[in-house]
Amino acid sequence: MAEAAAFAIDIRVYYEDTDATGVVYHANYLRYFERARTEWLDSRGLGHREMAERHGVAFTLADLSIHFRRPARLDDRLAVTAAIAERTPVRVVFEQEITRDGRSLIQGQFTVACVKVADFRPCRLPEALSKEFR
Amino acid sequence: MAEAAAFAIDIRVYYEDTDATGVVYHANYLRYFERARTEWLDSRGLGHREMAERHGVAFTLADLSIHFRRPARLDDRLAVTAAIAERTPVRVVFEQEITRDGRSLIQGQFTVACVKVADFRPCRLPEALSKEFR
Amino acid sequence: MAEAAAFAIDIRVYYEDTDATGVVYHANYLRYFERARTEWLDSRGLGHREMAERHGVAFTLADLSIHFRRPARLDDRLAVTAAIAERTPVRVVFEQEITRDGRSLIQGQFTVACVKVADFRPCRLPEALSKEFR
Amino acid sequence: MAEAAAFAIDIRVYYEDTDATGVVYHANYLRYFERARTEWLDSRGLGHREMAERHGVAFTLADLSIHFRRPARLDDRLAVTAAIAERTPVRVVFEQEITRDGRSLIQGQFTVACVKVADFRPCRLPEALSKEFR
Repeated sequence: MAEAAAFAIDIRVYYEDTDATGVVYHANYLRYFERARTEWLDSRGLGHREMAERHGVAFTLADLSIHFRRPARLDDRLAVTAAIAERTPVRVVFEQEITRDGRSLIQGQFTVACVKVADFRPCRLPEALSKEFR
Repeated sequence: MAEAAAFAIDIRVYYEDTDATGVVYHANYLRYFERARTEWLDSRGLGHREMAERHGVAFTLADLSIHFRRPARLDDRLAVTAAIAERTPVRVVFEQEITRDGRSLIQGQFTVACVKVADFRPCRLPEALSKEFR
Repeated sequence: MAEAAAFAIDIRVYYEDTDATGVVYHANYLRYFERARTEWLDSRGLGHREMAERHGVAFTLADLSIHFRRPARLDDRLAVTAAIAERTPVRVVFEQEITRDGRSLIQGQFTVACVKVADFRPCRLPEALSKEFR
Repeated sequence: MAEAAAFAIDIRVYYEDTDATGVVYHANYLRYFERARTEWLDSRGLGHREMAERHGVAFTLADLSIHFRRPARLDDRLAVTAAIAERTPVRVVFEQEITRDGRSLIQGQFTVACVKVADFRPCRLPEALSKEFR
């Protein structure tokens, strides 16, 4: 997992992300986590458009859980990681973390399910994509 | 205009709407204004789905301008108005205002253009809808 | 729990809530859930301002988990419930659900911790508030 | 203006930015524009914190107007510019543009006013900052 765990994107906290308590609004961390998953998928040639147009599938969130340790603040520079923790023929579990200066702020686990674009029904991950998740 | 100007919806300010300065984040007022336009259209039988499915048209924003006088704060109860200021065969101009206890906070003007759902090209307002904007 | 479970607010899905897949963007369900918790607290006299000004405390999210069953769509009318599932001297666990026409779409569990407004350190729920969570 | 006009940041469109029409939700362009203004200010040593802590001032939006020409879509790579169009002792007007592959999508004009952090009252731009806006 060492390699996968190394994947991370940098994010800066803007006003749009904060709320009146002075820290990042909790739902906005989910946006950060999704940006990292998107970039991770892209880095493996699994962009949204390619998956839909070439394979007829998309990913949809089935479950998520978040553990909040410390808040992020305006102007913070954050790193958001993405790594695969588990894979079944129909689901992929991402383990993700938001850190600031190497210190863990928020941890998240996201289970995404493969669905057909045509009817949003669950389906098996296409063989061609499956190997990218190993 | 007296009648049209009377149309308003009530909105409460939640944490999601605020930013670290303690007041509503500026882009979020646009969400408030759009909720009021949506309810105004609905009140005249011009819901998004009906317009798309029965008439093949949709509205898209062409221009907007906002004047900020006073900020709204967490837990505020606001009124957001919607009224037609002008109408041409292809465009409708809404004048809108956000008030708190009758006091004006923000004013906005939104020009929406009629487009065909199929190709997003500008088109004339269907005759059947046109009368609703008088 | 019958009484508590009955607490719900109504929400309409606007364009602002949706994404390019045509359904509600996943992070936005968290905004819906928080609106319901805010209204639940308010209905018991536990508004954000009163808690901060009279008791010097605030609630902060410690953990959350969400299970997605079915998506909500543009113009949907949803009900969002809030009920207390568990309470310790320093934490409160909310069980919440989003339904459409009585059918469950999304379930969420939110653990909120009591903190002092002054330094954001965890603290016990003030005696005066504690009884409201029974 | 040639130099100033050259300032731009790159932005990628994520799901969070889009709505059910398949393009970027209009209010989200304002978030893009603000990111560019923030980075422009930062590039001149005018970060939010420095301004508040060293000079006791902040910027607040007084007026904005947006002209929408073409929509941005999921996965688009955009450039967002920021340049000063006008400056008075109490206000600064930014002209901004969002482009894709050099083609103009959205134009915006934002008037920001200088206010004292202490009471949010309008004030003159501090001498030390004033020169940065030339």
